[in-house]
Amino acid sequence: MNENTNNVHEYMQSLGQHATAAAREMSKASTATKNAVLQDLAARIIEQQTSLVEANGLDLEAGRAKGLDAALLDRLELTHARIQSMAEGLVQIASLQDPVGEISNMASRPSGIQVGQMRVPLGVIGIIYESRPNVTADAAGLCLKSGNAVILRGGSEAIHSNQAIGALIQQALKQAGLPETAVQVVAITDRQAVHELLTMDQHVSVIVPRGGKGLIKRVTADATIPVIKHLDGNCHVYIDEQADYDKAIAIAVNAKTHRYGVCNAMETLLIHESLATTLLPKLAQCFAQHEVELRGCERVCAILKQVLVATNDDWYEEYLAPVLAIKVVDNIDQAIDHIEMYGSHHTDVIVTENFSNAQKFLREVDSSSVMVNASSRFADGFEYGLGAEIGISTDKIHARGPVGLIGLTSQKYIVFGDGTIRE
Amino acid sequence: MNENTNNVHEYMQSLGQHATAAAREMSKASTATKNAVLQDLAARIIEQQTSLVEANGLDLEAGRAKGLDAALLDRLELTHARIQSMAEGLVQIASLQDPVGEISNMASRPSGIQVGQMRVPLGVIGIIYESRPNVTADAAGLCLKSGNAVILRGGSEAIHSNQAIGALIQQALKQAGLPETAVQVVAITDRQAVHELLTMDQHVSVIVPRGGKGLIKRVTADATIPVIKHLDGNCHVYIDEQADYDKAIAIAVNAKTHRYGVCNAMETLLIHESLATTLLPKLAQCFAQHEVELRGCERVCAILKQVLVATNDDWYEEYLAPVLAIKVVDNIDQAIDHIEMYGSHHTDVIVTENFSNAQKFLREVDSSSVMVNASSRFADGFEYGLGAEIGISTDKIHARGPVGLIGLTSQKYIVFGDGTIRE
Repeated sequence: MNENTNNVHEYMQSLGQHATAAAREMSKASTATKNAVLQDLAARIIEQQTSLVEANGLDLEAGRAKGLDAALLDRLELTHARIQSMAEGLVQIASLQDPVGEISNMASRPSGIQVGQMRVPLGVIGIIYESRPNVTADAAGLCLKSGNAVILRGGSEAIHSNQAIGALIQQALKQAGLPETAVQVVAITDRQAVHELLTMDQHVSVIVPRGGKGLIKRVTADATIPVIKHLDGNCHVYIDEQADYDKAIAIAVNAKTHRYGVCNAMETLLIHESLATTLLPKLAQCFAQHEVELRGCERVCAILKQVLVATNDDWYEEYLAPVLAIKVVDNIDQAIDHIEMYGSHHTDVIVTENFSNAQKFLREVDSSSVMVNASSRFADGFEYGLGAEIGISTDKIHARGPVGLIGLTSQKYIVFGDGTIRE
Repeated sequence: MNENTNNVHEYMQSLGQHATAAAREMSKASTATKNAVLQDLAARIIEQQTSLVEANGLDLEAGRAKGLDAALLDRLELTHARIQSMAEGLVQIASLQDPVGEISNMASRPSGIQVGQMRVPLGVIGIIYESRPNVTADAAGLCLKSGNAVILRGGSEAIHSNQAIGALIQQALKQAGLPETAVQVVAITDRQAVHELLTMDQHVSVIVPRGGKGLIKRVTADATIPVIKHLDGNCHVYIDEQADYDKAIAIAVNAKTHRYGVCNAMETLLIHESLATTLLPKLAQCFAQHEVELRGCERVCAILKQVLVATNDDWYEEYLAPVLAIKVVDNIDQAIDHIEMYGSHHTDVIVTENFSNAQKFLREVDSSSVMVNASSRFADGFEYGLGAEIGISTDKIHARGPVGLIGLTSQKYIVFGDGTIRE
């Protein structure tokens, strides 16, 4: 191990130790104290927006010098409007119900004990994200409200912005008498710091990566700690034999065109053969108005002459763009088989008036969100009533779908007796 | 890769592929069909007990020839009584409520959608266990009832017994029209098979090791798949300043002496200083009757002259034997600090009549079960009303404490609309 490697290791271990100690304090913090920190932080962010914009200016300048592209520079920028919405996000988190300490399922057992479960924080969360500096405040707010400590590792191109936001968070924690080390922003840009964070099993309970596919793949490959992640959002809408035409068109158009670059946008449309001849031309017309490029299976192309033939790769593709793959299926089973084979277990929709088909689809499609007669665009923490989300999980273990405060907690068993012993 | 390595890899991959396909069928199986398999299997086990005892005889003979010790041979043995209780366990699992398809928290959102969660199987479970062949039937029963497929890898010394039980399970699955490959017992004893199982991310959702610490450490180190595990059961009972003497004595004696070799037995007793002089002699008398060896801190030794001084290692020790470490503490905070520092986050108990101290202990002790005025021996799936348990988890992610059917499932979001789109 060379000297630098050793230094990064020591530095990250020290963050880990501080976070572990802080997590114990955070788990005991009252709801009122945590809300006070969030509100105080929101006020500080508004108050200090000029200095935040200045710090962000250093990052933007360095980014331009490095030749970062326009999209990346846009994500990196902290405008006054974005700072305002960062502060509003924190106030909104303050207004959410505190999940910590919630007791459920308390029931008496024949032995005389009462058994239930109490919701508790996970401990230390590690968040790894890319260029958007607002994640620093959002993620810290969610971790703090759920009674956790957090280590934040943002993109190196946003280091000044993240440090500036991190300093305000620590001021707010200190003001409330909570440990400043409950929220720590990694201060070095060395990539080894990420590897260290991903392998600190003894300090970190869970890793949440926020960013593109590349980041998430690297994090998953490296981590020895559980990761809450989603890789792809290859979402389907299946228009069933007994679909209502108006609902089908409204949902298909909304799911594809409401926003293109999001993980809950529809990427493949499946349509029952009995509706294909009548419905496909209408859908094609709507998509043409939105300039969505269509790629179809052979049966689609036989009906819509201008449409390109989809290759096998198209069925796997998360376009994140105004492109849509369309396939005609013989029946609901073929639709479900297609989704299971090519889908990414994110969000899939059936449009149908048939009760049994809806039930079958709900039960058999193995995705984190399964919908009947609703647009896939609803797969979102705010829309589900979770408040802000830290991410969307397509894993099956622990948390699935949008992950809000509850996903950052766990449950322990609690038992009440009266001197009760086991016979 | 040599030929054998390659063969084991191919063999395990084929089990994985079959299990993945079977899991989809199992997730759709009705409660009645799954219960029928469990009951049919119980009947077959009773009917075929002579041949099970014969198969087990081969294992016992080989074990004796290999010089296995008496305790291991005892765990390996399938007596008629044990076969009977294996069958009863399956009937009991059939009587448990089916968790699959359960819908909870269905609520309307301002957008017009209804959102809730549906309980679904995890998919394919990998179970790795040691000498007890009854685990084959128990674990298969729990996985089957929760709609999962399972790959079972028992100890090589029990291979004939496990294969014989596995064959009966497959007959029962076939009889009910379910895929036989929903339950597969690994037929080779090559240790590479374990490594393959632990790294089949693409097929296996979760690994459950059942056995001693050595097994669990090896599994955790090797696995690239989430593991539901507990390492140690270093459980504490803290007798608070305001404890009722009779309850304290009953709980301490029960927690230590009810059974010694179990993970929920008390290993360290903590006692408030104000009670030490009066209560310790009484406790010592009780433990003497049970021939429990005591090891105390200096303050304990000043009161109980015959007691050995505990070393620092004693506080970490899971004795699994008639040995108990005892420490006098100044106050409840010192007790909690001790538990956090030396404990294993399994089960910890406070004995107190003071409401606020009980609340503080419940909130601040970070263990999978935290109890007030009850014996640690209650930390058990049956006692908690979960029915049988597949294991006890001291992890924080996914499942914590005794893991029954619910712990072998996950929840997906379901959304109902009426052509609802996002504005």
